[in-house]
Amino acid sequence: MTSKIDSIFQQRESDVRSYCRTFNRTFTHAKGSIIRDDGGREYIDFLAGCGSLNYGHNNPAMQRALLDHISGNGLTMALDFYTDAKAEFLKTFERIILKPRSMPHKLMMVGPTGTNAVEAAMKQARKATGRETIISFTNGFHGCSLGALAATGNQHHRGGAGTALSDVVRMPYQGYINNTEVELIEKLITDPSSGIEAPAAFLIETIQGEGGLNHVNKEWLQALAGLAKDVGALLIVDDVQAGCGRSGKFFSFDELGVMPDIITLAKSLSGYGLPMGMVLIKPEYDVLSPGEHNGTFRGNNLAFVTAKVALEVFWADDVFKAHLTRSEKYIRQRLNDMQRSLTGAQVKGRGLMQGIDVVDGELAKAVSVEAFKRGLIIETSGPQDQVLKILAPLTTPIEVLQKGLDILKQSLECCTTEQKKGAA
Amino acid sequence: MTSKIDSIFQQRESDVRSYCRTFNRTFTHAKGSIIRDDGGREYIDFLAGCGSLNYGHNNPAMQRALLDHISGNGLTMALDFYTDAKAEFLKTFERIILKPRSMPHKLMMVGPTGTNAVEAAMKQARKATGRETIISFTNGFHGCSLGALAATGNQHHRGGAGTALSDVVRMPYQGYINNTEVELIEKLITDPSSGIEAPAAFLIETIQGEGGLNHVNKEWLQALAGLAKDVGALLIVDDVQAGCGRSGKFFSFDELGVMPDIITLAKSLSGYGLPMGMVLIKPEYDVLSPGEHNGTFRGNNLAFVTAKVALEVFWADDVFKAHLTRSEKYIRQRLNDMQRSLTGAQVKGRGLMQGIDVVDGELAKAVSVEAFKRGLIIETSGPQDQVLKILAPLTTPIEVLQKGLDILKQSLECCTTEQKKGAA
Amino acid sequence: MTSKIDSIFQQRESDVRSYCRTFNRTFTHAKGSIIRDDGGREYIDFLAGCGSLNYGHNNPAMQRALLDHISGNGLTMALDFYTDAKAEFLKTFERIILKPRSMPHKLMMVGPTGTNAVEAAMKQARKATGRETIISFTNGFHGCSLGALAATGNQHHRGGAGTALSDVVRMPYQGYINNTEVELIEKLITDPSSGIEAPAAFLIETIQGEGGLNHVNKEWLQALAGLAKDVGALLIVDDVQAGCGRSGKFFSFDELGVMPDIITLAKSLSGYGLPMGMVLIKPEYDVLSPGEHNGTFRGNNLAFVTAKVALEVFWADDVFKAHLTRSEKYIRQRLNDMQRSLTGAQVKGRGLMQGIDVVDGELAKAVSVEAFKRGLIIETSGPQDQVLKILAPLTTPIEVLQKGLDILKQSLECCTTEQKKGAA
Amino acid sequence: MTSKIDSIFQQRESDVRSYCRTFNRTFTHAKGSIIRDDGGREYIDFLAGCGSLNYGHNNPAMQRALLDHISGNGLTMALDFYTDAKAEFLKTFERIILKPRSMPHKLMMVGPTGTNAVEAAMKQARKATGRETIISFTNGFHGCSLGALAATGNQHHRGGAGTALSDVVRMPYQGYINNTEVELIEKLITDPSSGIEAPAAFLIETIQGEGGLNHVNKEWLQALAGLAKDVGALLIVDDVQAGCGRSGKFFSFDELGVMPDIITLAKSLSGYGLPMGMVLIKPEYDVLSPGEHNGTFRGNNLAFVTAKVALEVFWADDVFKAHLTRSEKYIRQRLNDMQRSLTGAQVKGRGLMQGIDVVDGELAKAVSVEAFKRGLIIETSGPQDQVLKILAPLTTPIEVLQKGLDILKQSLECCTTEQKKGAA
Repeated sequence: MTSKIDSIFQQRESDVRSYCRTFNRTFTHAKGSIIRDDGGREYIDFLAGCGSLNYGHNNPAMQRALLDHISGNGLTMALDFYTDAKAEFLKTFERIILKPRSMPHKLMMVGPTGTNAVEAAMKQARKATGRETIISFTNGFHGCSLGALAATGNQHHRGGAGTALSDVVRMPYQGYINNTEVELIEKLITDPSSGIEAPAAFLIETIQGEGGLNHVNKEWLQALAGLAKDVGALLIVDDVQAGCGRSGKFFSFDELGVMPDIITLAKSLSGYGLPMGMVLIKPEYDVLSPGEHNGTFRGNNLAFVTAKVALEVFWADDVFKAHLTRSEKYIRQRLNDMQRSLTGAQVKGRGLMQGIDVVDGELAKAVSVEAFKRGLIIETSGPQDQVLKILAPLTTPIEVLQKGLDILKQSLECCTTEQKKGAA
Repeated sequence: MTSKIDSIFQQRESDVRSYCRTFNRTFTHAKGSIIRDDGGREYIDFLAGCGSLNYGHNNPAMQRALLDHISGNGLTMALDFYTDAKAEFLKTFERIILKPRSMPHKLMMVGPTGTNAVEAAMKQARKATGRETIISFTNGFHGCSLGALAATGNQHHRGGAGTALSDVVRMPYQGYINNTEVELIEKLITDPSSGIEAPAAFLIETIQGEGGLNHVNKEWLQALAGLAKDVGALLIVDDVQAGCGRSGKFFSFDELGVMPDIITLAKSLSGYGLPMGMVLIKPEYDVLSPGEHNGTFRGNNLAFVTAKVALEVFWADDVFKAHLTRSEKYIRQRLNDMQRSLTGAQVKGRGLMQGIDVVDGELAKAVSVEAFKRGLIIETSGPQDQVLKILAPLTTPIEVLQKGLDILKQSLECCTTEQKKGAA
Repeated sequence: MTSKIDSIFQQRESDVRSYCRTFNRTFTHAKGSIIRDDGGREYIDFLAGCGSLNYGHNNPAMQRALLDHISGNGLTMALDFYTDAKAEFLKTFERIILKPRSMPHKLMMVGPTGTNAVEAAMKQARKATGRETIISFTNGFHGCSLGALAATGNQHHRGGAGTALSDVVRMPYQGYINNTEVELIEKLITDPSSGIEAPAAFLIETIQGEGGLNHVNKEWLQALAGLAKDVGALLIVDDVQAGCGRSGKFFSFDELGVMPDIITLAKSLSGYGLPMGMVLIKPEYDVLSPGEHNGTFRGNNLAFVTAKVALEVFWADDVFKAHLTRSEKYIRQRLNDMQRSLTGAQVKGRGLMQGIDVVDGELAKAVSVEAFKRGLIIETSGPQDQVLKILAPLTTPIEVLQKGLDILKQSLECCTTEQKKGAA
Repeated sequence: MTSKIDSIFQQRESDVRSYCRTFNRTFTHAKGSIIRDDGGREYIDFLAGCGSLNYGHNNPAMQRALLDHISGNGLTMALDFYTDAKAEFLKTFERIILKPRSMPHKLMMVGPTGTNAVEAAMKQARKATGRETIISFTNGFHGCSLGALAATGNQHHRGGAGTALSDVVRMPYQGYINNTEVELIEKLITDPSSGIEAPAAFLIETIQGEGGLNHVNKEWLQALAGLAKDVGALLIVDDVQAGCGRSGKFFSFDELGVMPDIITLAKSLSGYGLPMGMVLIKPEYDVLSPGEHNGTFRGNNLAFVTAKVALEVFWADDVFKAHLTRSEKYIRQRLNDMQRSLTGAQVKGRGLMQGIDVVDGELAKAVSVEAFKRGLIIETSGPQDQVLKILAPLTTPIEVLQKGLDILKQSLECCTTEQKKGAA
């Protein structure tokens, strides 16, 4: 049986829809790293809700907790009321995540999207410092609402604004100018005649999920953090995509030797794909007054329920982390193999957020299409969409990773062969 | 047993939290119009998730569908993939809502918040017209992300921006200057020397939920819609709070004789309090290219499941609408009574979105606090927070409405008596 | 002999040139109210450098002082150095203008243009109040550099910006909504939910030279001034065009019962048509630090020399003012006559800044062209350029006024007759 | 007799006055490179109206022409009317400046300030390209009105804005990052995900007069010009300070192998210190419609008269240029001497726009003060005001240059000796 795409989509859904154009099946069920279409065909999911399903689809422990909560008439939405589910989540987050890291941060529940977390973080930083300028980085992606969009680098998204994107100054990310970026930034900020205002904050992803899997190393990030401190700016790490284990640790900065003043989380925070956004903020910068930033769905109690379970199941001990280390190595090794067989190709990223830059965006697109035919969902990223990005659920068993990477390899070979033929 | 508030909230939750400061209990369960705290005490809920729970808490039909979908390993989050749940929702929405109204609108799934729907609507309007200015109205509330915040009137929220709120021009809402507002707006827009640029759109709520329950009438809105057409601007109705039945009809403009070019929905769209946002847009203005505006959680499939049930249960015939008419009348009558007994008081709003302006914000606050003590959750709104706003679930039985309104009346009497004593 | 227009203008001068397109002769000499072209033809000048030549062309007393200063090797440009010419100007301005009015204002020398004066005034107001929003008015004209342009209403000029014109909010000028404008403004500013931020200043012309000769009366302006005080905003009167006697008094607000916090002057300040700009500012709002706003030509010493003479000759006693009163009455009477003979026509303005609204911009243009043929230079203004504006030198003898007004009358008759023929 | 400073300045002039705080005498007369105070003391002028008096004070030929024009009742101000004086200026400018360089540029008369020329240039570039972003450079200075100020780097001036400075992106000037600046700029502009929008124009000074006498070389500027062409951006050279001979050639780019699309001139354009501003623009980018950018004093006919004479006297043959070459060499040699005797000092600039960076802003200030005591007016520039800048009239005889440089040398020695004492 083949998947049928209902004509309603063509007739009634906005043309802005996008992923469904490449992965053009009607999907109905999913479990773990496997997603199934209405024809019964199964696909290995190397996209995982764009990083929102780090623990796979329909994780049984969370599923159970969710069913219990719903069937027991627990609260679903409760604005920012105190609820038992929220208390449990907060306490669990404190115990498993904050305390072991001696993090004093307060937790701000925001509208259940990454972009809303970024908007809230920018507001806190601007109010805390009394400054307007936020420094963000080349190839950074921070969301599509107007405040966050100003910090996003991608021209396609920026072009949609239709109005000015203000008070964000762009600086080069590590690697843009031979790792001398922080020196340039320091010179610009400390030069009273450079035209760059003293910034409220640096807003940075330690791994650029949409920007092509560039990442910063410890030395560079520490230099940036040091500069931030020197000039009275806050360091905001946008961990919406790289957080919640995607880097191999819970936070993407866990082994980079810095402690951000503000951290944004969303995507995999609920663990189950339920919308949720949160900002972690050092108490001294938690300056917005009651309700100054709000949003109706900032109290998604179903998300609190599953988020708590996710923390308990995966982060209470080191078992999961060991699995992540193994997976990271395995992916790296397989990508290295592919790199060797493709001139100019380059392995990108780190942790469970790796990929391969195949130089050519059209090739990458062709590989994605071919892989889908072969039963693998994998997306591209980067300025030219030239990086095939592996965002498999963190929980993906090695053998499923292997199967997916086999498909990727075959698809890559298939498309490069095609390309050569076309060129001949 | 008394409700205990876990110390975790004080220690770890951001100071930005707000509703929980007034309704300071820990809530655990809810059903219909009743919400229960951890001490077992029950409260009549006249806030309903700030309009997100129009069908009450944990509606059984939706609850059943949700449990089935989850336990059957249906998809939870799937970006903007085609899914069975989404197709069902779209088809149901088309059949029950769009077709009977001959609405050609396309449906844009956005990040699951009202503010994101507004951001998307503004982008579409700006791109469709090639203009930058959006006209919004005094006392309007449209959200807290930067683009939507520019359109929001409330100074408390605007003050949190920490940066410029640009390209929105403010015009007076109906009643601000003796119902001559549209004349002024027309004069300003058609005067080539007024300094007001030709607008991309008018962004308006037909009933201002946060702004104090002001509302426009048919004649006024038709004049505005006519003006929009004349000057090449789009009419955007922000129905995030007033939509989904809150006005007594599905859309707040259903009997106002206009057809907006763009409509935003969120809050009660999922029916069950699950985060969901959507923009309805006439096909000719659906101009954003694929992915130009996006957001991870724009495909909340659990919300599609419940949203479909909500439409089928409540909007497929006229039974519910008849109930709403009765409820509206009952509330109006009770509020009229209260108005008579309080000098200067004024009944505000329409449909199931009515309230009473008690002139004094401190009095309104006191009434809200007193009512909570007596078992009723009711919030204030308006520029001085002087309007007690009834946002009971639409499904609330008359006898529960009665009970809630009795408490409101008693609380009001209690507080005005107190006030007189204080003044004496 | 006919005037010849050198081909160099067509070949080399930017297409942005404008007045010369209507008054297309090559001019060579001028004296008093008469300007002469290279063919020896004389024109009565009812434009007077757009209000920059209030004392006529080449006033002998100023001419003498200028020649002496130049031939004596006095300083011409001296940045903001202390010079004898500047000291003399300042002392004379204090003695003749400030002291009699008990004005405590300090004098800020700015770049020698009106727009620069407005930019400086806006900076002082924003810094003094710590607020960003400036309120300006429909049909106001304040200049074409970006800061001043934001306050300018004219769409033609605004359209040239090519970028955002921010932080100015537009309010209706007197007469826009039946003289209830200040009430609306007050309501908007004091409503914490209106979306209008507390303003740094109101920036207003008491007579709108470019906007069509609308003007405010005493009661209205006092209400606005009172409101400014109540809400902590400054009152800036832009007297670039209406100042220096144009209104019949030295300042346009001299008999309007208010004392602005900041006043801008330029155009006729030097008295001889030499570029000069100045801002008067109450000492408590003179907050810019040394050099924070600057400009090379802020010390045009030739202008100081003539400006001093202008003050001494014209403003040291009441003779000139009496002449202005007579001229104003005469012009008014003649315009009233014309008004009676043209349906819908309306006399506009006050003082020596009067004109006639002939309803139709094309008619006004035709009249201007016809008058020029007959030896009169007169321009149009207003949103549709429908107002013929008389800006004769203040020194124009009544008999020359008479001659010019005769031409205007004949031209108007001629054109309306033509128009009727065309319509027939 | 000692100079007396009239108390009127302290009492009535705005605190924004600046140069007069250092050069605190009352000046009365000037001739050539010598300026005299009211006590009869003479000073060598190495500031020359901040570059506005390139031909010295009161040049006799211009003085004569000016006196003739004024006494003959020539036009003084005539808006943008065609006048004989303007025609003569345009023809002379075409003949002496444009034709020999095969420059097709049109001439746009703007408000008589440098900042207005920059505003006009930015408008033309934005309209011609349909883009908003202007790229300007670190340490650039372009004026203080809002549009130009956005492009200015200096924090002191920027801080005075009191509102957003938008749509200018800052890039490093040559030398900021080891001459790799254009590579970085190219990478940023061509990377579709950098967050830098395609620019309307690059706005650059070839020598940074206020920024500390940094300058670009031929190779670098050609690379930038090439990049501009490649990306569809215009090249605007701001020659307000470095133009009109200051660099040793008429235009500062005359020997740098590029032809800018737009050039701004002001300061020394009139030759006599009279306010004047002009924009040169290739015909295809002369896109503003009639009057779209305007300004009352854009037709300063006195300036046309002297500007014409200046061109004829100094630029019609090569005599003056030869003098400039000699002067440049002499200054260079003397500064090199000073550099050798001061650790860390660095000679900066080129042409007649050279100076010495003495590392320490306080030292530079002390030298300026000391030199003034000894009869020399010299200013500082640069981000820390650490560069002593020689802006002597271009016409200064070598023996006067010598005398001035002797004073500079002595003052420098005196202050460094003082400093050492202070440190001991």
